Amino acid sequence: MRQVNVAVVGATGAVGREMTRTVEQRKFPVSKLYLVASERSRGKRLPFSGEEMEVQVLDEFSFKGIDIVLSSPGASTSREYVPRAVKEGAVVVDNTSAFRMDAEVPLVVPEANAHAIARHKGIIANPNCSTIQMIVALKPLHDEARIKRIVVSTYQAASGAGAKASAELREQTADALAGKPIIVEALPDRIAFNVFPHIDVFLENGYTKEEMKMVDETRKILEDERIAVTATCVRVPVDIGHSEAINIETERKLTPGRARELLAAAPGIAVLDDLEKNEYPLPINAAGRDEVFVGRIREDESIANGLNLWVVADNLRKGAALNAVQIAEHLVR
Amino acid sequence: MRQVNVAVVGATGAVGREMTRTVEQRKFPVSKLYLVASERSRGKRLPFSGEEMEVQVLDEFSFKGIDIVLSSPGASTSREYVPRAVKEGAVVVDNTSAFRMDAEVPLVVPEANAHAIARHKGIIANPNCSTIQMIVALKPLHDEARIKRIVVSTYQAASGAGAKASAELREQTADALAGKPIIVEALPDRIAFNVFPHIDVFLENGYTKEEMKMVDETRKILEDERIAVTATCVRVPVDIGHSEAINIETERKLTPGRARELLAAAPGIAVLDDLEKNEYPLPINAAGRDEVFVGRIREDESIANGLNLWVVADNLRKGAALNAVQIAEHLVR
Repeated sequence: MRQVNVAVVGATGAVGREMTRTVEQRKFPVSKLYLVASERSRGKRLPFSGEEMEVQVLDEFSFKGIDIVLSSPGASTSREYVPRAVKEGAVVVDNTSAFRMDAEVPLVVPEANAHAIARHKGIIANPNCSTIQMIVALKPLHDEARIKRIVVSTYQAASGAGAKASAELREQTADALAGKPIIVEALPDRIAFNVFPHIDVFLENGYTKEEMKMVDETRKILEDERIAVTATCVRVPVDIGHSEAINIETERKLTPGRARELLAAAPGIAVLDDLEKNEYPLPINAAGRDEVFVGRIREDESIANGLNLWVVADNLRKGAALNAVQIAEHLVR
Repeated sequence: MRQVNVAVVGATGAVGREMTRTVEQRKFPVSKLYLVASERSRGKRLPFSGEEMEVQVLDEFSFKGIDIVLSSPGASTSREYVPRAVKEGAVVVDNTSAFRMDAEVPLVVPEANAHAIARHKGIIANPNCSTIQMIVALKPLHDEARIKRIVVSTYQAASGAGAKASAELREQTADALAGKPIIVEALPDRIAFNVFPHIDVFLENGYTKEEMKMVDETRKILEDERIAVTATCVRVPVDIGHSEAINIETERKLTPGRARELLAAAPGIAVLDDLEKNEYPLPINAAGRDEVFVGRIREDESIANGLNLWVVADNLRKGAALNAVQIAEHLVR
């Protein structure tokens, strides 16, 4: 592999920090790494490969000489700076929603559609966290039996809303235990000892943007506009690790045994499905891990070809940083 | 209303205590109330109507002269003592799973099938908490459009597993925040900052008993064996208040507007569904309330006649104690 210059944009955020860690842990062939963030982070220092590195300010940063940008600064920032980075010669793997549904931009989960990377024009979009883990789990089943419809309910961790939301979960929980008043700032509702069905903004059709991401991105990544998807996205008081109760209807019959076989053989998946041993995926165990964990695989007898699955992954790693770095690895090959 | 003698069996448990509180709050026409529990609670005293009452031991307690028993001691205990209580002349409203699927025993959610109470032979079963709130929300929609299929994912509170599980949620959470080791005793997995898809025991078909309760009880209460139901039941780090993401397919078209109208007019329901005001049901707000709260009512465009709902209720009140007391109110009328 050739050595490349890499910039992490949004480097001080929850996903940005995980991107830097993932680059280091996977021994990504970095020649030089730059940490880039907004004006607010001017002067901050963050660790990389045993060194403290100074954070660069995005508005002043030149992308000339940068090969690959790992980008997670928020959609409006991406919309603004990414065209400039591309013009200056970088290829941007962007983790925001800014370009995901752009027909010119590949939207990639490497386990599902790595082939799409080749047709990029400077930008490759990283899908939404809740979509990525669902796609990894469903792709082998779709290839075998064609998925017609997906009904998914999510149990999403606070860290999916950023480092401030993680801190808010801890602070609110400590305050609740101490009987103190609860302060709600980073998230739209109290998260301590509570759940709420409100992730990203509400749209005209009554769905949240997060829910519609799961609908639209799934079709784009699986390259099948016929797949019907409906989603309910819910925040739960977990720090790291999104969980999903996924119900699928397939065109051809897929037994739980065959599904288990396909999933066990598929890349990026660990099957945890031994009920006698109380074995099923848990967010607390998925945190810090690269795999998408699948369990509770069982026939849905309410329809002819139905299956239920329980899918858990680290939303900061496979749901964001790892998927982006995997795309970057394809770029340098 | 006539005055009746009431015994609360399982009076020291989370549901039993809520039953006693509910009898008091609703001014149920009690002549004399007895608190009954197992040998372990001998000598315990619990409050009722401003008095401290001594708990009676179940094995020594005579049901002669008792009109109504509100019962929540656990299924195996109910199986043992309820026939004796009935023989001694009491009518038992039993909150355990012991008799729910018995063809001779009415299984009742008063908002849905109060008419079934009349055919009791001494026992009336109170449905499972997660079933009750779903039935209250779905009954008016079923009457209008006939529900063909339900896909439900639950977000169930720790208190549904009893007072010890509630305490364990608080203790584990405090320990997690303090960086101490986590002790798992009352629940099958760690609940602090975690979720797990394991409520009640696993069955041969890969479902939990809790999930199959939602399938079987729904059909029995709605008196429609054709309703197809599939469920995933998940414990979340909430103390009180079960939440449910419910997806339904109806025979006849039901718009979100019409569903909202029907739900707003139905007994026992409060519609909270104003997205502009960030209004939707939350377990933290449902705790201590009698209503079943319904929101996020939106069309599921993945099928012809589909609808999504978010349904929240206090699992100890409408999910258990209140529903039982409402049945008892029908009995004394």
